[in-house]
Amino acid sequence: MKPTKLTELLGIEFPIIQAGMAGGTTTPMLVSSVCNAGGLGTLGAGYMSPQQMRESIRDIRRLTDRPFAVNLFVPEAIHEESILQADAINQIMKPYRNQLGIGDPVVNKYMESFDDQLAVVLEEKVPVFSFTFGIPSKETIQELKKNKVIMIGTATTVEEAVELELGGIDIIVGQGSEAGGHRGTFKGKFEDSLVGTMALIPQFVDNVKVPVVASGGIMDGRGLMASLVLGAAGVQMGTAFLTCLESGAHSEHKRAIFHSNETSTVLTRTFSGKPARGIKNKFIEEMEPYTDQIPGYPVQNALTKDIRSAAAQQNCPGYMSMWAGQAVRLSQTKSAGEIIEDIMNKAMALSLTDLWKR
Amino acid sequence: MKPTKLTELLGIEFPIIQAGMAGGTTTPMLVSSVCNAGGLGTLGAGYMSPQQMRESIRDIRRLTDRPFAVNLFVPEAIHEESILQADAINQIMKPYRNQLGIGDPVVNKYMESFDDQLAVVLEEKVPVFSFTFGIPSKETIQELKKNKVIMIGTATTVEEAVELELGGIDIIVGQGSEAGGHRGTFKGKFEDSLVGTMALIPQFVDNVKVPVVASGGIMDGRGLMASLVLGAAGVQMGTAFLTCLESGAHSEHKRAIFHSNETSTVLTRTFSGKPARGIKNKFIEEMEPYTDQIPGYPVQNALTKDIRSAAAQQNCPGYMSMWAGQAVRLSQTKSAGEIIEDIMNKAMALSLTDLWKR
Repeated sequence: MKPTKLTELLGIEFPIIQAGMAGGTTTPMLVSSVCNAGGLGTLGAGYMSPQQMRESIRDIRRLTDRPFAVNLFVPEAIHEESILQADAINQIMKPYRNQLGIGDPVVNKYMESFDDQLAVVLEEKVPVFSFTFGIPSKETIQELKKNKVIMIGTATTVEEAVELELGGIDIIVGQGSEAGGHRGTFKGKFEDSLVGTMALIPQFVDNVKVPVVASGGIMDGRGLMASLVLGAAGVQMGTAFLTCLESGAHSEHKRAIFHSNETSTVLTRTFSGKPARGIKNKFIEEMEPYTDQIPGYPVQNALTKDIRSAAAQQNCPGYMSMWAGQAVRLSQTKSAGEIIEDIMNKAMALSLTDLWKR
Repeated sequence: MKPTKLTELLGIEFPIIQAGMAGGTTTPMLVSSVCNAGGLGTLGAGYMSPQQMRESIRDIRRLTDRPFAVNLFVPEAIHEESILQADAINQIMKPYRNQLGIGDPVVNKYMESFDDQLAVVLEEKVPVFSFTFGIPSKETIQELKKNKVIMIGTATTVEEAVELELGGIDIIVGQGSEAGGHRGTFKGKFEDSLVGTMALIPQFVDNVKVPVVASGGIMDGRGLMASLVLGAAGVQMGTAFLTCLESGAHSEHKRAIFHSNETSTVLTRTFSGKPARGIKNKFIEEMEPYTDQIPGYPVQNALTKDIRSAAAQQNCPGYMSMWAGQAVRLSQTKSAGEIIEDIMNKAMALSLTDLWKR
């Protein structure tokens, strides 16, 4: 049994968290709509500058007075080897740059300063801080606790979940292999950590005491109820909100999702150097043979940044990173509020008595 | 909504199917115990000779008067290329043979005759026929229908599920990526068909009308109820029964499962030429670099047969194929009847009202 009810801990109505998808999907309108509908909206701020974060957080606050979360990427060491690989991979990616009419990449920094981003979270008194790719330092966690910020970590294995719990994290998202976007794996190999949600959640619940939130392949009331039955305290959904009206995802990204099925996604390191699940396209397929030459995250991410931006500007889905999970057939064009209402209606309608009649 | 209740269709009490694990796990004692406890036991007869099948079926009948299933492998074309690869891979596997003290492989046939196996199913009036790796011919399906044999097919994608339904198959098992043992994929690439159970089942249910049975990562009452909530009419469980008292699985196989966790399994072609999920061991790891040189199924399966047998006889888990799913932490040593009782007790105890309190 969970010691604390997830919704009470987060100050929300329904146990539904909108995932902190980075890269412009989580507009203040999306985040606030999810909050206003009773869920927990999350600003995917991993790639945002402190200034952008501050503006977005203030926009969210103008649109809702409910709790929301900000999601950041825990920084990891940049390997010398990755930097050494940059020139060769830039050469391989040169044809894409030519096609998009952009010059050589100008990389000022590989990623935003986590400390500066975190300062904004604290200064703006963000109620919930969620993170992936690791666990913040003890000092950071203490600082957040002192400021009464609720912390949500991401784990892909029981070992990672236990480390988050021992580190004092309040809530753990179990990321099943179905999930779209980047793998949160931070201990061991990502290939060993591709565990399906159905198998993952009961194993998490049996091994940690803090509330576990299920993610990966969950799109509707069926997924929510199945997760609760497995022992989760709630769900985190990304793809389900990616195509909604308030989402800032590129129209070509949304279109690709509606033309996809359960076999359309693939795990790829091509865009960022870190494995992520997205819809197969020209870039992924053509870069796949060079996998071993692709620098690690965040180097490759920095090197493809303007390719992805130019592709988006030119409506060129072949070179965009179109993250999506494995349940894309269940995607809908609705407002975030309607999606949450549908989820709750369906969840409430599912009764155990009926289930036995099938 | 499902037109027919699964349990009525199969003449069983609870919507629980014990998977037809080939290779000696599904002893008549296991199959009959599952049936006597209210589930559907399945004889995994894929590798059995007609004579062995007949004896096992008669043994099952001596132990239960309830319906049971026999599972077979739909034959596939043997590629010339695979046969040409045999000599080279035998050379690579030679050290294992030396270590186990066995000579060169003597392959009389690559697999048992499906027609001869099927004849036994019909002659012995087996009530339920389940299959994987494809779909039988129209004539075979008609013959089975004429004999009122209920048919259960295996699908890993919606496209496969739709083909099974159009072919007249009564029940479809949706095999999630968590599942242990061989992938049932028969259309497209297996890599594209590794969809987690949580994502797979709702997409199946939305696209076929026949009852869908969830499999992959389901080990207890939580998994059963979650599957029903997702829209499945029941579950098929393999690993959950593999470690039970009546299972014929090798003691080293059972031991390995109890020493495993969710990161211990891997998809490998090394043992049979067809991707299957099993616990990583010496053979898998050492053969992995030669993946491209491994002949397709059933050629490689025939070539490793005596390696696996000798390894089993000599209690040498490093060279055995130890199939298992991703929820191994939930494995138990109990009788099959107790496992089913536990599942049903837990399932019944799960009430939606309680779920909201977490």
